[in-house]
Formats: sequence, structure tokens, C-alpha cells
Amino acid sequence: MIDDPVDAFLPGPRATEAGVPGGPLSGLSFAAKDLFDVAGHVTGGGNPAWAADSAPAETHAWAVARLLGAGADLAGKTITDEVSLGILGENAFFGTPRNSAAPGHVPGGSSSGSAAAVAAGLVDTALGTDTGGSVRVPASFCGLYGIRPSHGRLPLDGMMAQAPSSDTTGWFARDAATFARVSAVMLADEGGTPPRRLVVARDAFGFAEAAVRAALAPLLDRLAGVVESVAHEVMAPPGLSVWGRAQRTLQPAEAWQTFRDWLDRDNPPLAFNVARGLIMGSLVSDSDRQWAGLMRREARARLNDLVPPGTVLAMPTTPFAAPPTGLPLTEQNALREQILCLCAHGGLAGLPQINVPGARLDDGRPVGLSLLASPGHDMDLVRLAEKLETRDG
Amino acid sequence: MIDDPVDAFLPGPRATEAGVPGGPLSGLSFAAKDLFDVAGHVTGGGNPAWAADSAPAETHAWAVARLLGAGADLAGKTITDEVSLGILGENAFFGTPRNSAAPGHVPGGSSSGSAAAVAAGLVDTALGTDTGGSVRVPASFCGLYGIRPSHGRLPLDGMMAQAPSSDTTGWFARDAATFARVSAVMLADEGGTPPRRLVVARDAFGFAEAAVRAALAPLLDRLAGVVESVAHEVMAPPGLSVWGRAQRTLQPAEAWQTFRDWLDRDNPPLAFNVARGLIMGSLVSDSDRQWAGLMRREARARLNDLVPPGTVLAMPTTPFAAPPTGLPLTEQNALREQILCLCAHGGLAGLPQINVPGARLDDGRPVGLSLLASPGHDMDLVRLAEKLETRDG
Repeated sequence: MIDDPVDAFLPGPRATEAGVPGGPLSGLSFAAKDLFDVAGHVTGGGNPAWAADSAPAETHAWAVARLLGAGADLAGKTITDEVSLGILGENAFFGTPRNSAAPGHVPGGSSSGSAAAVAAGLVDTALGTDTGGSVRVPASFCGLYGIRPSHGRLPLDGMMAQAPSSDTTGWFARDAATFARVSAVMLADEGGTPPRRLVVARDAFGFAEAAVRAALAPLLDRLAGVVESVAHEVMAPPGLSVWGRAQRTLQPAEAWQTFRDWLDRDNPPLAFNVARGLIMGSLVSDSDRQWAGLMRREARARLNDLVPPGTVLAMPTTPFAAPPTGLPLTEQNALREQILCLCAHGGLAGLPQINVPGARLDDGRPVGLSLLASPGHDMDLVRLAEKLETRDG
Repeated sequence: MIDDPVDAFLPGPRATEAGVPGGPLSGLSFAAKDLFDVAGHVTGGGNPAWAADSAPAETHAWAVARLLGAGADLAGKTITDEVSLGILGENAFFGTPRNSAAPGHVPGGSSSGSAAAVAAGLVDTALGTDTGGSVRVPASFCGLYGIRPSHGRLPLDGMMAQAPSSDTTGWFARDAATFARVSAVMLADEGGTPPRRLVVARDAFGFAEAAVRAALAPLLDRLAGVVESVAHEVMAPPGLSVWGRAQRTLQPAEAWQTFRDWLDRDNPPLAFNVARGLIMGSLVSDSDRQWAGLMRREARARLNDLVPPGTVLAMPTTPFAAPPTGLPLTEQNALREQILCLCAHGGLAGLPQINVPGARLDDGRPVGLSLLASPGHDMDLVRLAEKLETRDG
């Protein structure tokens, strides 16, 4: 194992490219998680055997091309958890990118290097992916704005798949203005209206650690101050853990389908826990998968009912702040299961969600507040974040 | 993946040491599987993370010290399947040792490098380990004498454990005379009486491929010619596959216990199939383990009844000759399950077993004949092999 924290970028020569001059993102730099194709470079997916088995990409991924076309400069590719399977950001082959917002603690994953690079000020924004929390969690742990867009809204061409029915492309930024600039380009949407009705997810706040609730309280108060009405509702009537179980059934089973041919052909080295996740996915029964599919339908209906256009749902992004690096797997996995209870709705229901930074525990570690909107209303959340930061400033 | 065949020895500087002058094995060279401690060298166990986590050994393993003390010269350490989990001899990190007896085909594992080194004439003998077939299978695939001694007969100090209730230390040689010299030293037994009654395991011969049966027929005829009586019996009344299932329950569950703390602490990279074996071991239920324990008791009783002192049991060592390298895992695992049906009795019942070479398929690939004796009668088998080879010559 690599014990010391490492740089956010992949080791070796950087994949760089200047953006098209004169675009709306001119002057901004960005990094891309090593799940996105950059023409002329191998997409390594956080696993040396995957990289060894891959030819250099011929064209840029859609998301990379989008940012370059808007004028942002590519500064390099970043470390990711192996084949995007990981939520803490510790890669057994490449190491754990340094979380400058919480030294000695994990950056969160799987978009670990992208979040770490933005948090450290190495770039202005960075591309990540979010299947089961891989943008939301590192945004919370590193104190960043981060988005999981509406599922299916953005093309995923040139992005390495994990579980397509949950996969999304997301991005990070340190401030609301940059976040809005990048989001408007990525979403091709200059509009957005801050929602005026707030629903506070009482079960999600109840699930988070007391210190997280306390740290988020001032942010939640400010949020209440910029809307017209506030309600407190249970988000997941069957239980967040039941939703978590459904997502933890669907996603690994789908990831197994994505990777099984590669595993069978190459027998690649994988970190033990990554292999275990895939194998557990291979063991999911049809009846469990069918049950989880029904629960997904119910979760979608519930959230669409709870969060109509014009409403924002608020919840803690993660139940706790970044844990220390180097925990034994049994402890890591217990934490992961808790995190997934607060993230499962993303893959199940596909609503857009942003993480808003600004809260910290007494020891300085950041924790994020999540805002969700009706599918397609991604920019409403971005505008709300701008309004909230302005009020903050 | 490493596609081209590699040398049998570990890469890098060789672990060498001259034997004590004037001993019974003076003039012989030997290699040790990288599961045996050699003082001053890390025991790598076929896995880079295991090696990285280990300090150099302070003393020699019992088996290494035994051979050095008898005058044999240590020529180096050899490649092994990862943490001795593998039966074909393909290591995802170190590659597949070249099987000079069947080019383009696997050497068998997990004592892959030790068998390959002896087969290529690089050393006179080599230490291996056999838990579920790891000496017997490479001996068959590489055309060598090889022994799995009576379980519990030899000290296993300084040998990396896998499943202690099945683990043994074995060795290889190209000719019966060398095999007898080494065996007499290792077993501290200059005696041994060739058994005079032969039992042919009709179910095991029935399980092997027809081409293997045909190739072994002349050897079996010669064997019949050096004993006084021949009987044909079913070896495993409940079925070889039932015994296979029992061993495939006990051994992975035990291997999981052996390695679980390491896996939990280090989350080491492992080849996918190795990780899968360990994880399946972790999922074995108590009731399955209890059933397998009862079947082990019955298998012991059956074999002790069938093979009293003075009797030798003959069976094909493997159901087929060495398969090609680089097969997909699904094909590898289907072959492995077949191999284990002919190997399971070793771990279940603990009888001594040797592989006798000399038979080849039409395409030249070796296949071995296995001889089993009553526990403690290891040297009876060695003497029988000498007698058989003399008659052969």
C-alpha cells in the first residue's frame, strides 16, 4: 500500500491542451478524471491492467471537448478509484490524493484526484463521474461545489462506464461563480431560477452525525432565508437503508455486467476490495434485482412527488466528514454503507443534486449541504447556490 | 497480463547458498518455491503486496535447511501462484513459467516455477507445496516425479501457510534415483518396501479423458507387472465430484481465515481470480463447512480401508494434460474444477502420493500416473517408483 498522500494528477507527463480562444470559459483551467478520454492518451480507469489493455483514445470525451471548446485549458488527468468503484478515494495502485481541506483524511471518491486538484487550487474546475456518490462525496469531504446532473441529461461518450443506469458526468469548483460559469456551459443552459420552496429531508438529517447536523445548521438557516416557504418531510418512507440496499443491489450487478468480459479475459490485478465489490455484484440473484428495480420505481415516484419544479430538497451530502486514511477494510466498508444510505437516491431516482460547501466541523473538516431539484432543473440549483453564497459574503 | 512465458526463477538476484559439504545430497542443486523462507530474503508468496509487507526471513524454512544440511546447493527461489492459490501456474504479476515439456501450455501450479525449473534441467530437485494439488498437478503437466507426503509428517516451519489442515511440503525430480535420494533425506527414511498389492481406482480412470487413459495404460501394465495382485475398485463411493466439493468447501474457507487479516489491513492488489477464490471462501456457511468435515471423515475412512500398508492405489494424477496458456477465466475454472475432482482426496485424507512420469499424449504432452500408500508409507511409493523405472529402462 502507498501510505503517504500523493498528488491529484496521474504520475508521468501531463495530458494538456489549450482551450479554444475567446470562449466563455477562457482563463479557466480544468482537470479530467482518468475515466474520460483525452485524445492521444490512454484512459487508465485507475487500474494498471485496464490501462495496459487500452489503446490511446482517438478523440476527446464529450465532456472534455465541451470544456475545451468553451475555452478552458486542460491541465491534466487525475487519479480515480479503480474502475470508479470506491467512495473514499484510496487507490491501492496510485495512492490517495491529498485532501488539502482535511490533511490526513481521505478526499472521497471515486473522483478523488479531481476533487483534490480543485481543493488544492491546482485547477479551477475538474470533471468527475457520479454513479453512487463519486462527485457528491468528494465535494463534501473536500469542501467544494460539485454537481451530479440529472441522469441522462449529458452525453457520456468517451466516459468509461460503470453502471449506465446510474452513471453521470459531474464537475467541481471552489466558488459559486466559477461553478455557475462551468455549469452553464456543460448544461448548455444560461437560465435557471432559484427554487422558492424548501423541503428539509428530516430522515437524512436524522441519519447524519450530530456534529454534521450542527455544522450544517447555519447554512440551512441561510437557505431558509432565501426561499419563501420551508417544510420538513421524510424523504425515503421505507427507510434510507432500504433505498441504500436497492442501489447496492442494482449498481454492483450492473457493474459486474460492465466488467465481466474484461475480468474473464485478463484476470487483472485489482485491489481486494474492488474485486470483492465486483464479485458480490456477480452473486446478486434475479429476484433481488427485480425487487431493487421495483424499489427504484417507487423511489423515483416519491422524489418526483416530493420535489416538483420550484422546490429544492436539502439534506446532508454525507453522514460525516472525511474519515482518516488507511483504515482497515472492515471499518472502511462500514463507513461506505452509511455513506450510501445518503447517496442511493441519486442512482435510483436520477434527480440533479449539488453539494454546497461552507460548513466545517470543530476540527476544520468540511461537510457539505446537498440540494436536489426536479429532473432537468439542474441550473435552478446552481442559481440558488450563487444566491446563497452572495448572501453568505 | 504477461503473455510470453517467463523463467522459472524469481526475477532479480538469485537467493543462493552452498550446501554443507560431504552430505548425502552433495552435488545436487535445488530451488525453493517462493513460499519457503530463505534467510536474508523476503518470502514473496507470488504477490508483490505480500512481499512489500514482509521483512527478510531471519532463518531458513525447515525444508530449505534440511536440503542444505544434506549437501544440496540452493540455486534460487521460484515463481509460485499467488499465495499458493492456483492450479494452472499463471501468475498475473510474475507471468507463467515456461513448461519445457509442453511449450505453449501451462506448467501447472501453484508450484509452477519449481516444476518448470526441474523440467528444464536448471536444478536437480525443487521444493514445492501441495494443499489441493500444487505439487501433483505440475508434476503431471511437466513430466516429473513429485510427492505430496503424508499430511503432518514433515515440519512446515518457515513455509507460508494456506490451509493448514491440508498443507504439505513436496518436491520434484526428473529421475527415480534422484527422487529417492532427496526423499530419503526429506523423510529421514532410508527404508521403504515396494507395495505388492495394486488397487486401480476405476472411478478416477473413468473420470480422466480417454487419451489420458490410453497414454497411462502401458505404465499401468508395467506397474501390474511388479506387484503380486491387482484389483479394480471405486475409490470415492459418493463420487469424486462430491469429494471435490467437500475439499472446495474446506480449503477456501480455511484459506480465508489464513489471509483475512492481511486483506483487511492492506487491501492488497490480487489477480481477480485469486480474490474471487478468497471471497468465495469467506462466504462458506457453517453448515456447508460442517458437512464437508463429515465428508472428510468418511473419505479418510474409505481410503484407509482401501489402501492398507502393503497396498498401492493407482490413478491418473490429472484428468488431462497441460492446457494452453492464456485461457479465459471461465474456461480455466471449468478445468480447475475437473482437476480438483482427482486431487481432493489429498487434502481430505492426507495419504502420501507420488506422481510417476513417463506417459505422453500423441502430441507429446506428459501426463502422470499417481500412486498412493497408507499414511507414513511414503518411502514405499518411492521404492516402487525406482523399481518401475528400472523395469522401464
